[in-house]
Amino acid sequence: MIKARVTVTLKNGVLDPQGKAIEHALDGLGFAGVGSVRQGKVFDIEIDNADRAKAEADLKAMCDRLLANTVIENYTVAID
Amino acid sequence: MIKARVTVTLKNGVLDPQGKAIEHALDGLGFAGVGSVRQGKVFDIEIDNADRAKAEADLKAMCDRLLANTVIENYTVAID
Repeated sequence: MIKARVTVTLKNGVLDPQGKAIEHALDGLGFAGVGSVRQGKVFDIEIDNADRAKAEADLKAMCDRLLANTVIENYTVAID
Repeated sequence: MIKARVTVTLKNGVLDPQGKAIEHALDGLGFAGVGSVRQGKVFDIEIDNADRAKAEADLKAMCDRLLANTVIENYTVAID
């Protein structure tokens, strides 16, 4: 059993209205000095596979095909 | 300028229908052995503050007050 964490974030330059809304909300709550907020996604995935290399290749394929939109998003795969 | 990453994940035992949907979609795409998928959120936050301890306290307060629903979610704060 392999546990992995996939993190998907917007590429630099891609507008993030959700992040902007959070930034303004934090400002409204009185948190001073919040510069920028960008929101992304994490996926905690368990794979029944003893082969780390195969699991990593599979995870990258999952990102390319389903989890991330690689036109506007970057992803990182971390395996425990 | 301090850069921090806040990760918000569902607590164990809390149902995650979005994660389940992704799990089935991955299975449908032919990825064998996907055990469980849980989806969470990340926030990349920049703070104009030279004091790390103050920034960390602020970030925890932001999570408690806005970014996470602590009834059903856990959060972690990582400062670069």
